[in-house]
Amino acid sequence: MKNLLKSIVENSKEYTKEGKVASYIPELSKANRDALGICVVTLDGKEYFAGDFEEKFTVQSISKVVSLMLAILENGKKNVFSKVGMEPTGDSFNSIMSLEVKNPQKPFNPMINAGAIVTTSLITGDSSEEKIENILSFTRKITDNKEIGINEEVYMSEKLTGNRNRALAYFMKSNGHIDGDVEEILDVYFKQCAMEINCRDIARIGAVLANDGVLPWSGERVISRETSRIVKTIMVTCGMYDASGEFAVHIGIPAKSGVGGGIMASVPRRMGIGVYGPSLDSKGNSIGGIKILQELSEELDLSIF
Amino acid sequence: MKNLLKSIVENSKEYTKEGKVASYIPELSKANRDALGICVVTLDGKEYFAGDFEEKFTVQSISKVVSLMLAILENGKKNVFSKVGMEPTGDSFNSIMSLEVKNPQKPFNPMINAGAIVTTSLITGDSSEEKIENILSFTRKITDNKEIGINEEVYMSEKLTGNRNRALAYFMKSNGHIDGDVEEILDVYFKQCAMEINCRDIARIGAVLANDGVLPWSGERVISRETSRIVKTIMVTCGMYDASGEFAVHIGIPAKSGVGGGIMASVPRRMGIGVYGPSLDSKGNSIGGIKILQELSEELDLSIF
Amino acid sequence: MKNLLKSIVENSKEYTKEGKVASYIPELSKANRDALGICVVTLDGKEYFAGDFEEKFTVQSISKVVSLMLAILENGKKNVFSKVGMEPTGDSFNSIMSLEVKNPQKPFNPMINAGAIVTTSLITGDSSEEKIENILSFTRKITDNKEIGINEEVYMSEKLTGNRNRALAYFMKSNGHIDGDVEEILDVYFKQCAMEINCRDIARIGAVLANDGVLPWSGERVISRETSRIVKTIMVTCGMYDASGEFAVHIGIPAKSGVGGGIMASVPRRMGIGVYGPSLDSKGNSIGGIKILQELSEELDLSIF
Amino acid sequence: MKNLLKSIVENSKEYTKEGKVASYIPELSKANRDALGICVVTLDGKEYFAGDFEEKFTVQSISKVVSLMLAILENGKKNVFSKVGMEPTGDSFNSIMSLEVKNPQKPFNPMINAGAIVTTSLITGDSSEEKIENILSFTRKITDNKEIGINEEVYMSEKLTGNRNRALAYFMKSNGHIDGDVEEILDVYFKQCAMEINCRDIARIGAVLANDGVLPWSGERVISRETSRIVKTIMVTCGMYDASGEFAVHIGIPAKSGVGGGIMASVPRRMGIGVYGPSLDSKGNSIGGIKILQELSEELDLSIF
Repeated sequence: MKNLLKSIVENSKEYTKEGKVASYIPELSKANRDALGICVVTLDGKEYFAGDFEEKFTVQSISKVVSLMLAILENGKKNVFSKVGMEPTGDSFNSIMSLEVKNPQKPFNPMINAGAIVTTSLITGDSSEEKIENILSFTRKITDNKEIGINEEVYMSEKLTGNRNRALAYFMKSNGHIDGDVEEILDVYFKQCAMEINCRDIARIGAVLANDGVLPWSGERVISRETSRIVKTIMVTCGMYDASGEFAVHIGIPAKSGVGGGIMASVPRRMGIGVYGPSLDSKGNSIGGIKILQELSEELDLSIF
Repeated sequence: MKNLLKSIVENSKEYTKEGKVASYIPELSKANRDALGICVVTLDGKEYFAGDFEEKFTVQSISKVVSLMLAILENGKKNVFSKVGMEPTGDSFNSIMSLEVKNPQKPFNPMINAGAIVTTSLITGDSSEEKIENILSFTRKITDNKEIGINEEVYMSEKLTGNRNRALAYFMKSNGHIDGDVEEILDVYFKQCAMEINCRDIARIGAVLANDGVLPWSGERVISRETSRIVKTIMVTCGMYDASGEFAVHIGIPAKSGVGGGIMASVPRRMGIGVYGPSLDSKGNSIGGIKILQELSEELDLSIF
Repeated sequence: MKNLLKSIVENSKEYTKEGKVASYIPELSKANRDALGICVVTLDGKEYFAGDFEEKFTVQSISKVVSLMLAILENGKKNVFSKVGMEPTGDSFNSIMSLEVKNPQKPFNPMINAGAIVTTSLITGDSSEEKIENILSFTRKITDNKEIGINEEVYMSEKLTGNRNRALAYFMKSNGHIDGDVEEILDVYFKQCAMEINCRDIARIGAVLANDGVLPWSGERVISRETSRIVKTIMVTCGMYDASGEFAVHIGIPAKSGVGGGIMASVPRRMGIGVYGPSLDSKGNSIGGIKILQELSEELDLSIF
Repeated sequence: MKNLLKSIVENSKEYTKEGKVASYIPELSKANRDALGICVVTLDGKEYFAGDFEEKFTVQSISKVVSLMLAILENGKKNVFSKVGMEPTGDSFNSIMSLEVKNPQKPFNPMINAGAIVTTSLITGDSSEEKIENILSFTRKITDNKEIGINEEVYMSEKLTGNRNRALAYFMKSNGHIDGDVEEILDVYFKQCAMEINCRDIARIGAVLANDGVLPWSGERVISRETSRIVKTIMVTCGMYDASGEFAVHIGIPAKSGVGGGIMASVPRRMGIGVYGPSLDSKGNSIGGIKILQELSEELDLSIF
């Protein structure tokens, strides 16, 4: 496995030159475009690495999966999905028009920004500090990594430039889609996006989902089998921004990407995978990361279809 | 004239029962649904009244005309219309979708909320206090009424419930359509909407526009003839929310309505008209006010078409 | 007047180089880009010309005004406006999205293609031949020109390439917005757009509207004063495609343009104007024609605002 | 298995009363609302039945899967997906707005009507007769049923009332998204939707897909493994109209429904399933059919997630 990963990372390196590091948040543009790494965590707890697997990056949209798991854990499936849907949408991740044009009772799904802001608004805690501590603590548990914290520069950068997310949140507030103080909810949201992780951390999250909600390293159940299945399903239909359909067809693994360059993937009953490569394609997905996952899926026949 | 106005107000009274007082801002719902009044100011400065012409109400969207006049005065036509368009739109006044779907360089016109927020952002002043003082002072001048102030309850009510306007403003901020601090701009905007006026005040504004920018009572020019014409034209195409086309066809007078129940109308080279009736139709226009203007237009042949 | 027109045409010539002849219908692309002409018809029946005023061109969207006049004459205002609205829209002339997104009971207005197809569907006649004869006969009457006929090459060209209009018509058929056979209605519509006219013809139509529905050359009333006013109002709010607002602000005359290069304008109680210049701006309006109207409006103070 | 199917059909019967038979095509409204049946075909070719499994119905949108398989077989994956995308969309199946609003290079996916019309346009044949014969012949092969033909009443009914599909097709013609004669393409499309099948037929199609493109009853390969995977993936993300996400979460099997009341499902490497129940929910999916699949999926642990 180790050699396979090493050779796949090598093969995928050349593609990083075709993409661009995210620039909409100034802090993200400082990433090293050529970095590329992978970690695989199998269900017996073994871990395999290659490339820049120890490089830290911010979790960004991959945190939408974490907050969804936690929100269901704390509120129940029924309550969460009364506030946010589970249907894919052809809109881009930060689109606002569907909230008005289609006038839905709730945002389409928890992987677009509007839906993720709703999910975050459901996390328990008496203050925004308590809420983000709650998310951090859950993230540390499912990554078995007590060191995970927030990158303050990225958080401040998101907060300063997050006006599109403010527009989404105030629109939903005006429609009654979210309760609570908008700026507080956004503060938690910006912080959860700025959690700093590496390939291993997200590979472990993928492994927990692959293992139907049980931590492979301890046997402890953290979420139900049903929640685990729901989350993987939504990752397939909505996890890769507006390239989700293409990713499902070509690679066929539940996955969630973030503009920090990470992709967290979960092969049901087999393994969790974390890849990192901050050079992004036009849809906002790691260009090298997708190449790695495609080759790995073909080599190990990982498609669920 | 006085008898004509009196009989028209009487004739229009019955229609007030078919509408509803605005309720989206809690404070507005306290208005007396049956109130109805009119004031006409001719270009020689004569003033005629009937009905509840002295009842005070908040100016609401009629302030969009005032801030447009002032913004052009301070910044020039070219600068203002580089930031906001002059095309009518079939969207409702608080719509956000066109900002994304049609991705325009600027909001469609200064009479929809998005455009009016841009106009307000262009008013000069070193602080939000100075800006609203600037607007108040200009309003007092074109109404010849030094008493005009802000209804604090309505302002607070708008501020508390103005999340749709926040969504519009943050969306435009994220697209670079507005400069400056969003909450400060909105604060000025909420205050300008909460200016308290009566029929006479808006009739005088209409008379200034009808008189090509010269105050009828003093002969002083406050805005250019061209600005005056621009403003009246935009009132025709966009002044009555998404009933502007129908109003133009049936009544044919440049006019601007507000959900406080006022309609300010300007008959070029003839007169300014202010009507008040807080009972609104489904488009947000004063139901009795429209009836009054329709009968008056027919009686005095006021249509410009 | 004659000298004024001549000098204005001269001044406007240079602008024709900045535009392009319409090419979406292949036949239209054969027009001479530099042609430019004008005709003015006053209410006492006097006619003044300059430039290429005798050059023939197809009426295109200006026919929407003719079919609207005729449809109201035959069906009454109430029936017509139960099928098509009178509100301006920020959409482009051939847009289909609003029919679905806003799901209106009827197309927004008779100047966008969807609305004009509805208007044409209301013209009386037992067959498409009778209907187009009906339109031709009415057009000949209001232009006092018995020679007006259909340019068969343009008609065939429109029919062959009119798939966007077919999409609009079948969409409205599926929603119940239009009755009757879609291909027959479209056949009449394509033919009415292919009527061949010159500047004088459209200047006369403008003069009939300016004269409140009475033919200036014979004193015969063809449409009511009210219909005449309705038509002029809709020309102001919707006549110049999505540049209607700007045209109203800068020129202030009810007008309707066509991609054949014509603009028909009507100054209430003063004159009708026809201009021709097939070089179009990006909105589909005659670029030289707009310059001519702007200069003429300023020289003679024609704005209604 | 037989007893399991029987009891599941019994349990699901009560739900048929909550839905409605399709009525937008008059012929469909004649179906028996209470009918409910199932057929399961395993990869060793065994077939199990329960309920009204022999009742015939029209295939409707399930034919979109058949024409997609055939179009890829004849044109190659690359050519097909250069003309139609593979992304899910939150729009309803017959939506036209995205073709204009998002102005994509191609319709979003082959399961919405716009995309399916494109797929059909790619089927080879010198005439519409040859094309539909081609589709029929392929359908007979993958169902091992030489009797499959077209229900002429339903076909005529679709043709007469198919104006929304005409609108979609002419819109795409005007944008260059489809080649060829629109009415001919629609004729083939209406006929493919009117193919008459029963539960067994669609269960066999599901089994071919589950078997990676090899006919279970003969071992003959009809489509490649890759095509088979692509088709199943698109069924997951887009197969159940705008309830695809919810179906994936709750049931987790690639499936495609039709308004005739059928659902064709394919459990990778395990079985094909056909269910029939013409009582539909508000999204257009068989209400009893979904209940059957949900219970079966739970009983046999069929979810791929």
